[in-house]
Amino acid sequence: MSISLTILGCHSATPRTFAHPTSQYLEINNRRFLIDCGEGTQVQLRKYKIKFSAINHIFISHLHGDHFFGLIGLLSTFGLLKRKNDLHIFGPKDLKKVVNLQLKASNSKLQFGLVFHELNSDKSELIFEDEKVEVYTIPLDHRIYTNGFLFLEKIGERKLNIDAVKEISEIEICDYQNLKDGKDFVKENGQIILNQSLTFNPHKPLSYAFCSDTLYKPEITSIIKNVDLLYHEATFLNDRQETAIATKHATAEEAAKIAKQAKVGQLILGHYSSRYDNLDLFKQEATTVFDKVILAKEGKVIKIDSKVPDELIIAHQN
Amino acid sequence: MSISLTILGCHSATPRTFAHPTSQYLEINNRRFLIDCGEGTQVQLRKYKIKFSAINHIFISHLHGDHFFGLIGLLSTFGLLKRKNDLHIFGPKDLKKVVNLQLKASNSKLQFGLVFHELNSDKSELIFEDEKVEVYTIPLDHRIYTNGFLFLEKIGERKLNIDAVKEISEIEICDYQNLKDGKDFVKENGQIILNQSLTFNPHKPLSYAFCSDTLYKPEITSIIKNVDLLYHEATFLNDRQETAIATKHATAEEAAKIAKQAKVGQLILGHYSSRYDNLDLFKQEATTVFDKVILAKEGKVIKIDSKVPDELIIAHQN
Repeated sequence: MSISLTILGCHSATPRTFAHPTSQYLEINNRRFLIDCGEGTQVQLRKYKIKFSAINHIFISHLHGDHFFGLIGLLSTFGLLKRKNDLHIFGPKDLKKVVNLQLKASNSKLQFGLVFHELNSDKSELIFEDEKVEVYTIPLDHRIYTNGFLFLEKIGERKLNIDAVKEISEIEICDYQNLKDGKDFVKENGQIILNQSLTFNPHKPLSYAFCSDTLYKPEITSIIKNVDLLYHEATFLNDRQETAIATKHATAEEAAKIAKQAKVGQLILGHYSSRYDNLDLFKQEATTVFDKVILAKEGKVIKIDSKVPDELIIAHQN
Repeated sequence: MSISLTILGCHSATPRTFAHPTSQYLEINNRRFLIDCGEGTQVQLRKYKIKFSAINHIFISHLHGDHFFGLIGLLSTFGLLKRKNDLHIFGPKDLKKVVNLQLKASNSKLQFGLVFHELNSDKSELIFEDEKVEVYTIPLDHRIYTNGFLFLEKIGERKLNIDAVKEISEIEICDYQNLKDGKDFVKENGQIILNQSLTFNPHKPLSYAFCSDTLYKPEITSIIKNVDLLYHEATFLNDRQETAIATKHATAEEAAKIAKQAKVGQLILGHYSSRYDNLDLFKQEATTVFDKVILAKEGKVIKIDSKVPDELIIAHQN
């Protein structure tokens, strides 16, 4: 069980030549998700060699352009590439209308299913689930309807203690699944071998919370409690606290307070305003409150493996 | 009087890491126009140091994504930059609906006027005129309603022959404008000095035609006759003639035929399909028909000055 998060873009709206708006590619427990899709995301996916066919679920936090203007281009490209698999899009309700109007205006008929999951609740809700992962919304407080997303690995199977299993000659391969499922083994003579003596605990499930854009909102800490990895927007530093409040954004210090209160493993900062050239100041401000802070950077890949949960691997693709 | 054309993107729809879809920035007779606006155009404008405030008129050929998906992002950025001047957008009628729905979905209120000029005629028509330039549509034949655009410098004022003027002591500075306007000079004694003896002909007005996307359509040659510079799409080479017809695109040879028939000064090719890696083949194919062929390339700047009309200056920005 593992998480790999690739930052495709991490800046706020005003474009700069080498700064892309929000988009992230998440692999968690062998499931793959695209989170937000600012303009140019399809080019970033190519740049970082992420297969378009890996993307079957896209989560859009809100309908400000720096979080979704790249979606229609990506969908059109999927069409040109003759995609066949259904694509699921989770986002605010007007998104469907915007996408469909553009497809109609360009007389485009997609050959794959476009399944919209329209979000409108102001409470956290389960919006995706399969045997490996669950995804919940995190209601945020921004100028328009906005959700963050919480990605949770499900608890996996117990791991066989092969040495112990081999000592019981009656156990056959066809019994392994029952052991992984936590069942005791009953020998022919009626003797019960407790599951704990034959298996190890499953790996700790990992979790990732994406929170952007939002005013400082301590109420979310109950939803994101103890997540291994939290991305929280930090559009401003403390020097622009008033602007943060007026535009319903957070400061680096506020993001760190959320991380501390929620006792998360690591905090990733991003969504920097173009007013700041020196991003190290964001880290400096946040670490006065919470010490495990990572600055989001385009191309950065942040990995956690539950086998070695305390070791965070950070790579950078160029 | 001069033309400067900057290629911001010149590839067809399927994105590649370093290939942008269609957009061009045109300066003609001190007027500035943006032509088409594929995804990422605002980043390209920054990259090539074109001032956002220079853009007051945008021409959109048609509503396929590779020609307009960057428009909404650019408009949003104009909003963030607190633009005040009206912005005029010329394009097919559904464009207004698409833009307005996205502005509404993001709860964006632009502080500048957005003036849509909706095009729906299938005949060439004058759509913009001021004292320096005229712009006409060029009806094209594509899968959806599509126009090219013809940009014409107006004939300028006559140039004073200062040596000849100085010889007539009665001519004062306040008479100069009449001379530039072509009027003869009448001396106090009634003697008429013919304008031709006091002025030179104005510089030859320059012209630029943008034609993308389109099937080979020889009917357009009457509209673009003798233009100094023609951009004509060449999505395919001859080897994919059938695909060109099926998708209503042109080949390099067909673009060259149009250039030859219209007796243009120079032909620029672009809108290359991603199927081709070696773009030199486009030039090779076109030059079998017409010899003055330029390959569009991102960042290429093509300049003509009417003072030295036979000299084409091609620069490249990185």
